Amino acid sequence: MPQSSRPSALLQPEAFLPRHLGPDAAEQRAMLDALGVASRAELIEQTVPPAIRLDGPLALPPALDEQAALARLRGYAEQNECWTSLIGMGYYASHTPPVILRNVLENPGWYTAYTPYQPEISQGRLEALLNFQQLTCDLTGLDLASASLLDEATAAAEAMAMARRVAKSASNRFFVDENCHPQTISVLQTRASGFGFELVLDAPEHLGRHQVFGALLQYPDSHGEIRDLRPLIEQLHAQQALACVASDLLALVLLTPPGELGADVVLGSAQRFGVPLGYGGPHAAFFATRDAFKRAMPGRLIGVSRDARGNVALRMALQTREQHIRREKANSNICTSQALLANMAGFYAVYHGPAGLRRIAGRVQRLTAILAHVLEQRGVQRLNRQFFDTLTLEVGGAQQAILESAHAARINLRILGHGRVGLSLDETCTLDTVAQLAQILLGADHGFDLAALADDAGLAGGIPAALARTSDFLSHPVFNSHHSETEMLRYLRQLEGKDLALNQAMIPLGSCTMKLNAVSEMLPVSWPQFASLHPFVPREQARGYQLMIAELEQWLCAITGFDAISLQPNSGAQGEYAGLLAIHQYHASRGEARRDVCLIPASAHGTNPASAQMAGMQVVVVDCDSHGNVDLADLKLKAAAAGERLSCLMITYPSTHGVYEEGIRKICAAVHGHGGQVYMDGANMNAQVGLTRPADIGADVAHLNLHKTFCIPHGGGGPGMGPIGVKAHLAPFVANHPVVELDGPLAQNTAVSAAPWGSASILPISWMYIAMLGPQLREATEVAILNANYLATRLAAAYPVLYSGRNGRVAHECILDLRPLKAASGVSEEDVAKRLMDYGFHAPTMSFPVPGTLMVEPTESESKAELDRFVDAMLGIRAEIARIEAGEWPADNNPLKHAPHTLADVTGEWARPYSIAEALTPSAHTRAYKYWPAVNRVDNVYGDRHLFCACVPMDAYRE
Amino acid sequence: MPQSSRPSALLQPEAFLPRHLGPDAAEQRAMLDALGVASRAELIEQTVPPAIRLDGPLALPPALDEQAALARLRGYAEQNECWTSLIGMGYYASHTPPVILRNVLENPGWYTAYTPYQPEISQGRLEALLNFQQLTCDLTGLDLASASLLDEATAAAEAMAMARRVAKSASNRFFVDENCHPQTISVLQTRASGFGFELVLDAPEHLGRHQVFGALLQYPDSHGEIRDLRPLIEQLHAQQALACVASDLLALVLLTPPGELGADVVLGSAQRFGVPLGYGGPHAAFFATRDAFKRAMPGRLIGVSRDARGNVALRMALQTREQHIRREKANSNICTSQALLANMAGFYAVYHGPAGLRRIAGRVQRLTAILAHVLEQRGVQRLNRQFFDTLTLEVGGAQQAILESAHAARINLRILGHGRVGLSLDETCTLDTVAQLAQILLGADHGFDLAALADDAGLAGGIPAALARTSDFLSHPVFNSHHSETEMLRYLRQLEGKDLALNQAMIPLGSCTMKLNAVSEMLPVSWPQFASLHPFVPREQARGYQLMIAELEQWLCAITGFDAISLQPNSGAQGEYAGLLAIHQYHASRGEARRDVCLIPASAHGTNPASAQMAGMQVVVVDCDSHGNVDLADLKLKAAAAGERLSCLMITYPSTHGVYEEGIRKICAAVHGHGGQVYMDGANMNAQVGLTRPADIGADVAHLNLHKTFCIPHGGGGPGMGPIGVKAHLAPFVANHPVVELDGPLAQNTAVSAAPWGSASILPISWMYIAMLGPQLREATEVAILNANYLATRLAAAYPVLYSGRNGRVAHECILDLRPLKAASGVSEEDVAKRLMDYGFHAPTMSFPVPGTLMVEPTESESKAELDRFVDAMLGIRAEIARIEAGEWPADNNPLKHAPHTLADVTGEWARPYSIAEALTPSAHTRAYKYWPAVNRVDNVYGDRHLFCACVPMDAYRE
Repeated sequence: MPQSSRPSALLQPEAFLPRHLGPDAAEQRAMLDALGVASRAELIEQTVPPAIRLDGPLALPPALDEQAALARLRGYAEQNECWTSLIGMGYYASHTPPVILRNVLENPGWYTAYTPYQPEISQGRLEALLNFQQLTCDLTGLDLASASLLDEATAAAEAMAMARRVAKSASNRFFVDENCHPQTISVLQTRASGFGFELVLDAPEHLGRHQVFGALLQYPDSHGEIRDLRPLIEQLHAQQALACVASDLLALVLLTPPGELGADVVLGSAQRFGVPLGYGGPHAAFFATRDAFKRAMPGRLIGVSRDARGNVALRMALQTREQHIRREKANSNICTSQALLANMAGFYAVYHGPAGLRRIAGRVQRLTAILAHVLEQRGVQRLNRQFFDTLTLEVGGAQQAILESAHAARINLRILGHGRVGLSLDETCTLDTVAQLAQILLGADHGFDLAALADDAGLAGGIPAALARTSDFLSHPVFNSHHSETEMLRYLRQLEGKDLALNQAMIPLGSCTMKLNAVSEMLPVSWPQFASLHPFVPREQARGYQLMIAELEQWLCAITGFDAISLQPNSGAQGEYAGLLAIHQYHASRGEARRDVCLIPASAHGTNPASAQMAGMQVVVVDCDSHGNVDLADLKLKAAAAGERLSCLMITYPSTHGVYEEGIRKICAAVHGHGGQVYMDGANMNAQVGLTRPADIGADVAHLNLHKTFCIPHGGGGPGMGPIGVKAHLAPFVANHPVVELDGPLAQNTAVSAAPWGSASILPISWMYIAMLGPQLREATEVAILNANYLATRLAAAYPVLYSGRNGRVAHECILDLRPLKAASGVSEEDVAKRLMDYGFHAPTMSFPVPGTLMVEPTESESKAELDRFVDAMLGIRAEIARIEAGEWPADNNPLKHAPHTLADVTGEWARPYSIAEALTPSAHTRAYKYWPAVNRVDNVYGDRHLFCACVPMDAYRE
Repeated sequence: MPQSSRPSALLQPEAFLPRHLGPDAAEQRAMLDALGVASRAELIEQTVPPAIRLDGPLALPPALDEQAALARLRGYAEQNECWTSLIGMGYYASHTPPVILRNVLENPGWYTAYTPYQPEISQGRLEALLNFQQLTCDLTGLDLASASLLDEATAAAEAMAMARRVAKSASNRFFVDENCHPQTISVLQTRASGFGFELVLDAPEHLGRHQVFGALLQYPDSHGEIRDLRPLIEQLHAQQALACVASDLLALVLLTPPGELGADVVLGSAQRFGVPLGYGGPHAAFFATRDAFKRAMPGRLIGVSRDARGNVALRMALQTREQHIRREKANSNICTSQALLANMAGFYAVYHGPAGLRRIAGRVQRLTAILAHVLEQRGVQRLNRQFFDTLTLEVGGAQQAILESAHAARINLRILGHGRVGLSLDETCTLDTVAQLAQILLGADHGFDLAALADDAGLAGGIPAALARTSDFLSHPVFNSHHSETEMLRYLRQLEGKDLALNQAMIPLGSCTMKLNAVSEMLPVSWPQFASLHPFVPREQARGYQLMIAELEQWLCAITGFDAISLQPNSGAQGEYAGLLAIHQYHASRGEARRDVCLIPASAHGTNPASAQMAGMQVVVVDCDSHGNVDLADLKLKAAAAGERLSCLMITYPSTHGVYEEGIRKICAAVHGHGGQVYMDGANMNAQVGLTRPADIGADVAHLNLHKTFCIPHGGGGPGMGPIGVKAHLAPFVANHPVVELDGPLAQNTAVSAAPWGSASILPISWMYIAMLGPQLREATEVAILNANYLATRLAAAYPVLYSGRNGRVAHECILDLRPLKAASGVSEEDVAKRLMDYGFHAPTMSFPVPGTLMVEPTESESKAELDRFVDAMLGIRAEIARIEAGEWPADNNPLKHAPHTLADVTGEWARPYSIAEALTPSAHTRAYKYWPAVNRVDNVYGDRHLFCACVPMDAYRE
């Protein structure tokens, strides 16, 4: 990084680039020396095929320093208007308890963690997710709950898909209550079309007219009505169909849970449990079902198992259901969940406890009842007979005046066609809100003494007696122990202390790009102007969001070469799905709807075939050669065979093998030659930015994992964002939205997510990242490549690198082959992964894309010092393996097989052929700073055989 | 806490009280049962003498919930105006690196920590403070630096006092450069009057005219001039006087350090190293001197020692210098330092490193040079020949127009009498700032091409060649390793992980009131409207601060019964000093300046006699009886003996023995009877709030530790706030300020702190606390008393409670007598304190006020569960002591003598008569969640004998 020698260079503000990059100039120099190249440019020359290289810098504005970028974004934020939104429709204002805000949402110990695939170093967030599952089970009245899905609408779509998997009904039709939220209906339409289901949209009382494999009912429904679902559920069960119910957690505090009414699936959004509205997300959806359906249940599931010492240990259960295992058989591509937000919702329940939740729900209901009473008294017609928090009113010709009056009070109501308005109260409402509403709806001279009404014990509630909740909930100790802020703070700290996140060590996960999540990128997420907007506010209240989004789209176009961006998909897998749908619609628009073959290389991410299945495509696998590259001949053969049925190719670039395939342009050309489209999986985009562009090398559409390449933190397993870039011909075919119509896509397009711009409130993270690097993004990519090649080179002697590209270089990640070692010593890749924990590291990606390997991606944010520490750990482990090979340690009793080691190991009997010091402190770093795995190696088989997915009573933890 | 049964009670928002209190209603019930009382009221009845009890509730507005309180305070904050302040005078805008903002200033792991008296569980913040000392040494060019003082002005006063202690000159006069900052001069005047020094204020070139014991020079001075100090220092040394230099850390990056010029003391503010302006504080002052003066140096000093295993371990060195040891001999009452802010400044240096600091200082200097150049070209007269960042200009009749123009640009300049303005550039300035200033000073048509000038290599700088820095600085690895955000984040996390703060366990420190520091109280500190104001902005820009301050003063008056509050003292000890000065001035105003005897009970805090000494008073110790109460007869005797020389009594209430002395009214009456005043030490105010009031029971003045009773966190040893409440007759005599004149005190009064309202930016914490509890503050006090009595009762059988009041009750804390156990077993209070760390607790206060005891204060924020955990730990330890008494374990080889235990213990040879499990996991809680002390017991004697107070090179940590 040569500094300009012009005197004015001194006046440059502090650049962000050197904060984002791990190695400084001197470290880079040393690494280049180790690689035997003179410069980073030479390394890139050796690594990236000339045919794909981008000429010139990215067309982005010059990098801003952190303060300037924050100031600019602040300028946008201040153009958002924070009104009181009573729009409802699944989104409700809530108070994030400050102790959760600061210590979870704003704490890198929580937000920089990875998905808990390695349970021994994830017990904290696994417990938090288990709380969320317990909360879901208790409030829905069902046995089993997932650890969150993307949003309510997606959860509904997953319920529909699951219903088809498990229902005995032979029907192809799925019933949807027309009183479901419109965005839910839209996403169901999208998903049904992919699966080829017929969607029946009708009033619930007409359910009996249809023969279906399942139905989605809503309770309370979108207009606030609360129906006794029992008769409907009985009708469904009578025809061997599944009863799915969308519901609301706060309402369920007071209502008989759908599970007790017979529902098979209950789902919804947990947003109002302390998660900011954020103009649509991210929020966690909940999903609960019967134990009988556990293997069909979508989403991650946390289960209780035991560790090698027999102690209680949590883990992700039934992982074999995940699409990376199921691949072609998958019919869900859900992999990103919303862990951080599910944790927040779970903690909200922990902090308030059952009594607190009853108080909050009771207050919301009481305020609604007061308002309902005065409206009734004045003869305002209410369309929902029963209610929890929502009133739908027939106001006729008064609508316009009411809306104007609401506007003057800076209150957003729900507008329901001509003559109707809706409103939903929430935790942040008070009697003042009711007074404002009475004034808006009845005029200032309405004459009611609201305070007196508030004290009227005879005032009617809105919940029918037959549906009042009688069952207890949240009786586990965890929900009844942490109600003081001090106790809550310590509980959060203790959980955090069990986990290894980026704030403690590198997380060298191949294909997951665990780079820096800078504080300056994260700060705007907490700004009220971004956090507090309802997704369906009129656009003029969200000017700041619109400006930021437009700019981000423009920048992502510049980076990818695409013509348009759709920000709606809120996970990478959902981006894939959305992209494939666009391709399908494009073909269909040209009268080629028959094109349904999707070519996928054998090396692809498991989400690829799953997404293709969901989009109604037939997956054809293309071979790879021994170097891990797509076998061009086989591709051509299969493209030709598909002929006029060829829809597309899905391909990852650089390949999942971590190399820049030389033939990428030819591959794309071959597909285009047969009328197909090219879908590029953006998982490895971090190796492209600034060096090449997906659109330039042949892709028609690609998704971008903003949570990988563009700095959104992983949050312990979500949130994510998977926007897609498309070429102009595909732009009309991306998702639209039924409530907030988007510019660009066709008006009739349905949605893939509940919210128009997906998880809008985390987009500022990526905006900040791009704003602060600008054309210097290229440098980040180059350093990512430098770091990966440095690691590969230093490790090669001990662990052969499986694949490499031109000049023996890897791209931004490398695959270490452990199979020869395993053959020689019995030590598996899992043993190495677990042993790395003793050295204070998170394991690399295990056995993907090749079983028996470890895939390592260091990213540009790791310093040489940290890389060396990792290499030294890996070499230390290699030396340990050598001692096993030499017979010094038995194959089944050595530090690798017993890894990871815990406090329990050293307070018990120690009778091992190696010392405690060798176990716990195998490196200088661990002697100076020891990270302690909370449990010994977790028994996966036991956990799945004895599936238990709810909170363990506190007593179980005690002796 | 009975809930109202009125239906409208349901509509109450979520109260803060149950979040603040540890025990909920059920836990309180169980504790009351254990005490054998029917209600909290009955306990209070038994505990608090009827004679002092307050009738009725506190006259405070009703409690607001968290959101409402935040909204109200936000309304105030928005009335502050965030202008660009170029006023200088020791306060400069700076950028807090976001990684430090979020992970230190906003992280309870840092801000809830206590002063590192227990080094084994404080290695993280000790290292951070050592960085600060190293930074100070390197930049000042001196050998030894303290771990921060309260502010620059106080540091100057401490330098003066130290000069008197160590200078061989017999003079009673101290020279002050008239170009020092006015607030520094004012505080020096205050302090000199207390000590009886004669202050000589003159131009530095007149130094030779005076015979002095020391001098304070400023470099660069308040007007920006940079003088070669060598000739002045030689003059001082020639007369055996000390040369003290106030300086600026950022300037010293480019200037020859004063230490190299011969200075004996260098001091100043570290604020501009990343600490927000905060309308005056809190900030850390730095203080460096020669090794020869180490035992005379004021303030805390971190030193490098070794632990029981011989490993490097940090600790507070030379603690015997602290006033709790020195007592009557003390001539400084500095005990609160500014640890959190010193840590931030040190981390700022760690993050930027020497190259980064050179870049920042170079930028500031270059921008100033460009401005200086254009002004010179246009013939604007500059009063300082040399400059770093400050220009003082003679603008004559243009002054008014310039100020108006600056006003229009929202820029604050320094106004220096008629015809002069000053300006100081800072890290946040850019060429745009210079352009604005050129326009303000020269008019829009000034005609300079600033960008061209910025590139002019020939442009003159402002630093004389002879004073350009040539020596290196910050060469230690710690300042050269953490420049990427990822590395910095991990460094911060690793340090935090070594420390035990309130986020992990209770800190049951008698007299220190470690209660909850709620997030909602802390959030406003980060708001830019509070964080970014210069202390000397025109009042109309600080309307929000003024409203908040006025309300806080009013509330504190209601709580204490006083008539006025002075918020200027920014530590408890400084409050004592300020209060005693007010008493002295009051006496003097009545022609009784001879009243100089200060009665102090033997049980008093060490700061009391130290403050009295500093205020020029003669300390007379009053005996205590065997119950720990003031011996009234002795008091009367000594008051009578003092007669017309009696100035005051200093007394703590409840007493430092943790009981409500019954005779307090008689004691106060006796003092008043002899014409004396009563100073009440507010350390134990947490036992008074809502139950009684200092003014009602006889105090004329009292200080309030806002960092104890009113929720300002301890920050690992500062910040603090020690405002004083006074009765009306004393109100005219409290501190005023030379720059911002206060309403109330006499105009001629000098200052005790550098800033008019002390550490203004942390006042919102106390404001929030009082706003959210209101009259319910009384409940907090009652629960504090309940908690203390519960602890005392449960522990009494194992550890006798030394003192109790009526009905055998203690107040809010209790003293456990360990002397009998020590006699029987050889186990000391220190052994128990260290062993508690193995159980995961911070030790109680050791050997204060009675040697051989532990003083425990649980506060109201600890739950019964946590209290029980602590009691169980103490009982577990008692059982261990029993095994020593029984001869099962040798007196010198048992878990208590070897405590605390560390990782190093178990990775080494284990040959102890107890097991590793007994050492590390003596309780169920430690098995579930283990806190690890970072080092074994620290060797205090070694540390003081081999005093080393700078960073250990990284190599020393490696093997």
